[in-house]
Amino acid sequence: MTTKNQEHFYFAKHDTVALANKYGTPLYVLSEDILRQNIRVLQEAFRDVHFPIKISYASKAFTCLAMCKIIDDEGLFLDTVSSGEFYTALVAGIKGEKITYHGSNKSIEELTYALSNCVGCVVIDSEQEIPTLQQIAASLHITQPVMIRINPGIMANTHERILTGKADSKFGIPFAEACGAAQKIVAEAPNLRLIGLHCHIGSQIHDHEAYVAAASNLIALYKDISARLPVCLQEINLGGGFNIDYLEQETLFDIKGYAKALNQLFLKHFSDGNIAMPTVGIEPGRYIVGPAGITLYRVGVIKNLSGLRKYVNVDGGLYENPRPAMYNAEYRLLVANKYNQPKDDLVTVSGRCCESDTLFENVMLQQSEPGDILAVLHTGAYQQSMASNYNRLPRPAVVLLKGSESEIIIRREEKEDMISKDSVPSWLHAETKGEKDV
Amino acid sequence: MTTKNQEHFYFAKHDTVALANKYGTPLYVLSEDILRQNIRVLQEAFRDVHFPIKISYASKAFTCLAMCKIIDDEGLFLDTVSSGEFYTALVAGIKGEKITYHGSNKSIEELTYALSNCVGCVVIDSEQEIPTLQQIAASLHITQPVMIRINPGIMANTHERILTGKADSKFGIPFAEACGAAQKIVAEAPNLRLIGLHCHIGSQIHDHEAYVAAASNLIALYKDISARLPVCLQEINLGGGFNIDYLEQETLFDIKGYAKALNQLFLKHFSDGNIAMPTVGIEPGRYIVGPAGITLYRVGVIKNLSGLRKYVNVDGGLYENPRPAMYNAEYRLLVANKYNQPKDDLVTVSGRCCESDTLFENVMLQQSEPGDILAVLHTGAYQQSMASNYNRLPRPAVVLLKGSESEIIIRREEKEDMISKDSVPSWLHAETKGEKDV
Repeated sequence: MTTKNQEHFYFAKHDTVALANKYGTPLYVLSEDILRQNIRVLQEAFRDVHFPIKISYASKAFTCLAMCKIIDDEGLFLDTVSSGEFYTALVAGIKGEKITYHGSNKSIEELTYALSNCVGCVVIDSEQEIPTLQQIAASLHITQPVMIRINPGIMANTHERILTGKADSKFGIPFAEACGAAQKIVAEAPNLRLIGLHCHIGSQIHDHEAYVAAASNLIALYKDISARLPVCLQEINLGGGFNIDYLEQETLFDIKGYAKALNQLFLKHFSDGNIAMPTVGIEPGRYIVGPAGITLYRVGVIKNLSGLRKYVNVDGGLYENPRPAMYNAEYRLLVANKYNQPKDDLVTVSGRCCESDTLFENVMLQQSEPGDILAVLHTGAYQQSMASNYNRLPRPAVVLLKGSESEIIIRREEKEDMISKDSVPSWLHAETKGEKDV
Repeated sequence: MTTKNQEHFYFAKHDTVALANKYGTPLYVLSEDILRQNIRVLQEAFRDVHFPIKISYASKAFTCLAMCKIIDDEGLFLDTVSSGEFYTALVAGIKGEKITYHGSNKSIEELTYALSNCVGCVVIDSEQEIPTLQQIAASLHITQPVMIRINPGIMANTHERILTGKADSKFGIPFAEACGAAQKIVAEAPNLRLIGLHCHIGSQIHDHEAYVAAASNLIALYKDISARLPVCLQEINLGGGFNIDYLEQETLFDIKGYAKALNQLFLKHFSDGNIAMPTVGIEPGRYIVGPAGITLYRVGVIKNLSGLRKYVNVDGGLYENPRPAMYNAEYRLLVANKYNQPKDDLVTVSGRCCESDTLFENVMLQQSEPGDILAVLHTGAYQQSMASNYNRLPRPAVVLLKGSESEIIIRREEKEDMISKDSVPSWLHAETKGEKDV
C-alpha cells in the first residue's frame, strides 16, 4: 500500500478509488462481508428469545440473483412484492416455500404464478383478495398457507410517504375487521389455510415502542381468532422498517433492545400454556443491505457562485438515486481520494440530470476538484432498486466485494440498451440506420 | 359502435377500453395526430414573426425511435442531454447537424461521441467545458459550433426543483461572466465557433413575462458580444418550459401571445439595421408531447375506510409515474368505461408499489369497481421517461396511435427482463435454474 493510497477511502478493505477506476462511475458497491455480518447481528439479537424467530429479507430494498443466493445461503426467508422479485428468487434457486408474497394490489396473473411455484405464504391485504386467492388455489388443487395483513392503526414517527401502519392507509385490513376476514377465510376459502397475522408499520422507525404497541394489538387478535375459529395460527409477523444511521448523528435501530422487548411481551402473553408460543416474523431490508452499500461518483464541473453557493457536479443524479428528490433523503459523503483531508468546504452536490437535480444540499466536504471520486455511504437500500433511465441515462453497475475479491453482479447499461425495447411502426417507413454506423 | 362503447372514453378516436384490453395495463398511449397538431400550433404561432424561428424538441420529455422519426419528419430540430438520447436520434436517422447537445456536466466520452457524429451545436454550460471541448474538436480536426448557456438570474414562478434560471443554479454561466466566457472561446478555443446565446429559465412556466425579461437580458449581451468580439452570433435560444393544462382550471401556455411579445421585442432591438436579426430558438418538450399522451390503468382492490378515505388501487404506481411523489404533480383522470357517468365519488388512487404510493389524492371520480379502466390525461411528458423498475416491476408498453391504427413503439418489459443484467459471481457457486423451469 503506497502513501498515496493511504489517503484513499477504503470500504470493506477495498480501495474505493481503485474500484472507481476499474469499474467506472457512477458505481454501486456492495460488500458481501458486511451484508452477512448485518444478518448475523440480527440472528444474534434473537438468539436467546423464547419464541421461534423467522427472519425474511425484504427484496424491495435491493435484489438480484447474487443477493438472493446470499440470503438463501444465510438461511433467511425472502419477501417479494411482484412477479419480478419472485422470479428473480426462483432463478437464484430459492425454493418457493421460503418466499412470502406481499402487496396491496396483487394481480390474478402474479398470484397464479406464485401459487403455481409453491410460494410459502401469501399475505392477504384485503377481503377482496380472499375469493380471488381461493379460486386460484382451488383450480391448482392446493391448500395455500396465508396470513392476514392487519392495519394496526399505529402512527409511527417517520416520513409520511413511508408510513404504512396508520389507520388511513392503502395497506392491510383494519384491526376491527380482521376477525371477520379470518372468519371469511375459514367459511368460504377451503383451499386457504390461515397461519398467521402480519403488520408493517412503516420504514425508518427509530425506536421499538411503536412495534411493541403493534405487537400487543396483534397478540390480542391472535388469541381472539385462535379461541373463536377452527384455525391453527402459528406466526405473528411484525414486518421491517428498522432505521439505519444515514447521518452521523443518527443511531442504528437497537435490534437487541427490540428483541428483548418482544421477548418480554411474548413471554407475558404466551407463558400460561393455554396457547402455544407463535413464531415471530421480522422482515428487514434496509437494515441488512443499506449499510452494506456505497455509491462512487466522479466529480465533473465545479461552479463557485460567489455569495450564493458552490456546486460540485457529479456523474450520477436523480436517475440513479431518486431518494433525495423523493424523500429529502440525506447521506454521509466524502472525497474518496482525499479521505484524510479536513471537510472544510460547504458545497451542494448536483447530479447530471437536466433539471435542478440536487443530490446533497449544503454538505461539508473535502476541497474537491474535477476528477475526484466522491463516496456516499449507506446506499445499499432503495437506490439501485429505484433507479430509472431518465434522460436515457444508462443505470450504473453493481459490484460485489467479498474479502479481497470483486465482481460485477448487475452489469452497467450501455447506450445501446436505451433503444432495446423501441420499435418503429410500419407507417413511419423505417429507414433506421444499423447500430454499427452510429 | 354499440351503446356500451358510447360510454367509453375515446382518445384520438380510439376506444381506450379496447386499447387497454388489447395491449394490457398499465399502458402509455401516445397520439401521433395530436403530437403533429401540437407542433403545427407552435409553427403557426411563429409564422408571421420577423425573425427566423428554430424549434427544437426536448428529448428528455419523452423519446424513442418512433418519436425521433416524427420530430424529424416535422422538420424540427432536436435537443439531447445524454449519449443515450443522442444515440436514439442517430439510430432513428436524424442527422447530427440537427441536434443540439445540452447538459451541466457532460463527460469527455459523450462530448467526443457527439462531436464525432457531427452534432449541430454544443451548448457550453461552464467555463470549465471550453478547454475540454476545444481539445476534443482539435483532435477531431473540426470546428464545432457552440452556444453559451447564460444564467439570466430570472426567478420564474414554478416548482423549485424545475426552476433553473435563477441566479443560484447549477446551470449556465452567470450573466456577469458571460462576456468573459465568450472572450475565452475566441482567444483560447480556435476549434470552437460561438454562434449564439442560450438560456432556459425553468419548466411549467405560466406566462411569458419571465421569458421576455430573460430575452431582453440576452439581447443586450448578444449586442455587447457582437460589438466587442470578432464573432458572428446568429441565434438567441430561449429554451422551453411552456406550461400545459394538467388540471381543468389551468390554462395552456399562450404560445401566440409569446410569439407576439418576442416579435415586438426583437423588432425593437434589431430593426435599426446595425446588426442582423438573429434566429430565435425555442425548445418545447412537454408542450408537444404532454397532451398527446394518456395512461391507462386497471382498477384492482378498492378499500373504503369509513370516515377516513376511499382507496382505489390501480396496477401502476410510482415506478411508472414518479411525478406525484417527486413534484406533487396533479392530473385529470376518469373511469374510461363509465365516461358518461357523473364524477361523484371522492377517492384517493394508489399505486401498487410497496409503500404508500399515492398517485392521485382526493380526486372526484366516477363510481369505480374492480376491473374498471382508469384513464389519466396529459401524461405524455416526463412519465415514461422517468419510469423505474422499483419492486422489479416491468415498465409498461407505449402504444402509438395514428388515425385508426395503433402499434407498439416501446414494448412492455417482462419479468425475464428483470434479471437480464444480473450475474452471479464465481464464488457464489451458481446453481442457477434455467429460465424455462420457473
